[in-house]
Amino acid sequence: VTEIRGLIERKKRGEALDADELRALCRTVVDGSVPDYQLAAWLMAVCWRGMDAAETLALTRGMVATGATLDWRDLDRPTVDKHSTGGVGDKTSLVLVPLLAAAGLAFVKMSGRGLGHTGGTLDKLESIPGFTVTLPLERMRAQVRRIGCALVGQSAELVPADGRLYALRDVTATVDCVPLIASSIMSKKLAGGAGAIVLDVKWGAGAFMQSADEARELAAALVGIGGGADRRTRAILSPMSEPLGRAVGNALEVREAIDTLRGGGPPELWTLTRELGSHAMVLAGAAPDLPAAVGRLEALRDSGAAAARLEALIEAQGGDPRVVEEPERLPAAPHRELFTAEGDGGWIRRVDARGVADAALALGAGRRIKTAPVDPAVGVVLRVRTGDRVAAGQPLAAIHARGAEAAAAAVERLRVAISLSDEPVPTPEAGFEIVAGAVA
Amino acid sequence: VTEIRGLIERKKRGEALDADELRALCRTVVDGSVPDYQLAAWLMAVCWRGMDAAETLALTRGMVATGATLDWRDLDRPTVDKHSTGGVGDKTSLVLVPLLAAAGLAFVKMSGRGLGHTGGTLDKLESIPGFTVTLPLERMRAQVRRIGCALVGQSAELVPADGRLYALRDVTATVDCVPLIASSIMSKKLAGGAGAIVLDVKWGAGAFMQSADEARELAAALVGIGGGADRRTRAILSPMSEPLGRAVGNALEVREAIDTLRGGGPPELWTLTRELGSHAMVLAGAAPDLPAAVGRLEALRDSGAAAARLEALIEAQGGDPRVVEEPERLPAAPHRELFTAEGDGGWIRRVDARGVADAALALGAGRRIKTAPVDPAVGVVLRVRTGDRVAAGQPLAAIHARGAEAAAAAVERLRVAISLSDEPVPTPEAGFEIVAGAVA
Repeated sequence: VTEIRGLIERKKRGEALDADELRALCRTVVDGSVPDYQLAAWLMAVCWRGMDAAETLALTRGMVATGATLDWRDLDRPTVDKHSTGGVGDKTSLVLVPLLAAAGLAFVKMSGRGLGHTGGTLDKLESIPGFTVTLPLERMRAQVRRIGCALVGQSAELVPADGRLYALRDVTATVDCVPLIASSIMSKKLAGGAGAIVLDVKWGAGAFMQSADEARELAAALVGIGGGADRRTRAILSPMSEPLGRAVGNALEVREAIDTLRGGGPPELWTLTRELGSHAMVLAGAAPDLPAAVGRLEALRDSGAAAARLEALIEAQGGDPRVVEEPERLPAAPHRELFTAEGDGGWIRRVDARGVADAALALGAGRRIKTAPVDPAVGVVLRVRTGDRVAAGQPLAAIHARGAEAAAAAVERLRVAISLSDEPVPTPEAGFEIVAGAVA
Repeated sequence: VTEIRGLIERKKRGEALDADELRALCRTVVDGSVPDYQLAAWLMAVCWRGMDAAETLALTRGMVATGATLDWRDLDRPTVDKHSTGGVGDKTSLVLVPLLAAAGLAFVKMSGRGLGHTGGTLDKLESIPGFTVTLPLERMRAQVRRIGCALVGQSAELVPADGRLYALRDVTATVDCVPLIASSIMSKKLAGGAGAIVLDVKWGAGAFMQSADEARELAAALVGIGGGADRRTRAILSPMSEPLGRAVGNALEVREAIDTLRGGGPPELWTLTRELGSHAMVLAGAAPDLPAAVGRLEALRDSGAAAARLEALIEAQGGDPRVVEEPERLPAAPHRELFTAEGDGGWIRRVDARGVADAALALGAGRRIKTAPVDPAVGVVLRVRTGDRVAAGQPLAAIHARGAEAAAAAVERLRVAISLSDEPVPTPEAGFEIVAGAVA
């Protein structure tokens, strides 16, 4: 206890702890030998003083050392991984994983469940009839050897320190701290064992990070850890003011992902998938440059190879692969209605991501408490984006609900979330910014 | 839990919590409804962001509201209280309490026990045969009505929040934080109910605060709280590079306090007592100005009235009052030896307060763990101060020990603590600086 107090004291004074100290601290997190109140004080001191790149890397390594790590050296293809800081309607993993597997990479995407206004990746996958996100390690390895991909829940054996630390951060207002965020994300990526890592860092009204500067700071911390740990790492920054794509809700998002993989879907989802995928290809040495990578990814989409890989993935994990060809096999909501523009129409001033998520939550697509089930079928499909011109009475969104009452609650929230202007509104900023990490 | 998280979050962002919020937070400290880890995070956020005067006052009041408060309005004389930030050899309360009672004030001094290299005020008092520091409240009130003073242990009924918060600060490296120190000190003063408060804030190598600036900052926080709570409050800053007075050890310090009360003793102890006492007199309206107050205090000392009041106090609390006239009745150590100057003598470069305290601890005068007993008889009596010229073989200190072995351990520490120079050394900075509070 006294020793830990000394570490807290030094961090409080602004000093950096060294690798041995942070490894010991992380070990005590897992073995329970340090009381939560000392960890809480240390976490707040980290929020206060920050961590330089070396200390952040040391913390991340200390966290990784608390659990098992995956080793893919026996595999015949390069391994990639991806993390997104998240956003409403983000179903990129569902497109990217089979696409890159079709391109010859190995891609095991582990996701957490967590709370959320809308379901997480695991909830989306579980809307596919029969699909399981829980695979024993050996079965997962065999699947990856065979089809190059898996989409599973975060293994409790990897980075056990992260769970306890995150739970404590959640109740001590220490979530919002770049080195703690970065070490939490990257510890799981390092333990996952992939040689190349792409990071989707979003910023703006629809994202966790509100400004581009915050996103750049986090991206720098992330790629710093990746490079320091000898992983080829790149972060792609993208502005996000509204939901990603059009669909918000579990099965609705799976359907949009399938559409995108087959060449349809909203262009912004494909654009982001292509951006992340092409960087992953180059990092993994599977393409000589970005244009070549993009060409290959588009060919895999257009040939149906990517969609076929998704079928194989769904089948391997117990799901009904026919949903790829026949998305109407996905669960569907019994009550549908359109949310239409009131008054004289005009231009879409704003589509507030949080407001749309609130509407989806009101429909039952997300959860307020960890143990609550989600409704796979319900959600919102937007028909407009910021800057679109709309006529009076034009549909702005389709609501997929259990019943009229839930739909009415969603309408109430969409009325706030989607606002109109009498004058033209510019379309939101687009474009990516790349933060590349140097391998140490 | 969520509500507390919101308060932590706001403090983390640098906002001030309001009086209602801090009162609620303090209440949860006592009723145990908030987990230690959330309090720990909040404490570290306070260290980070600080508190302005209004928030510090609100916290202090919130702490006071968790327990009982004393009310002296039925008393026929003004009430005073005093707090010292502490230092090795500080026995000022033992002199000041009977002195101000003799001057017609009511003075209840409550002290904590705590850990320490040397005994605390309670340990010193308990070296007087029969003396008890535990008085039931009604008996204490009757005693104060009769003789105007009491010297007792801190009541557990006053400010119960302080105990839990202090224990948590101790293990989370959040002790060293001005608003937390100030609210801890002043909450107990406010609950004690005195109308005038003098604060002895020491700084320097022998004190808790290392620099005058730190001491000024703490003093400003303390008098800010006092004034805000409608108490006439003054802080007296004094430099402290060596122990206060000459004696370090429980009965030895009582004897020095008695000597001082009777007109003897080391001049620096009387000087500090007179300074604190005269300000207390003026604050309490018992003297028109400082020179008048000083004259009255000196007269009370010289007439024997102050010493007589100490006799009455000792008798009222079960002790043997004859120790005042016959200090040889105090416990005495069986083994005495002198620590003498080595080499050719020279000038005293430094008398390190902590080193002298270490010597006293080695003799058994203090405690390393809370439940350990202290030896009332043992200790060190210095014969020199910084700047003194000493000849070869001249005694630098007298050691009062249980035996030769303990004395040898003390000598080893004194050899480090008292260092000599070949060249003249200036005497330490002296003089007081007053920080006065405005009553709101």
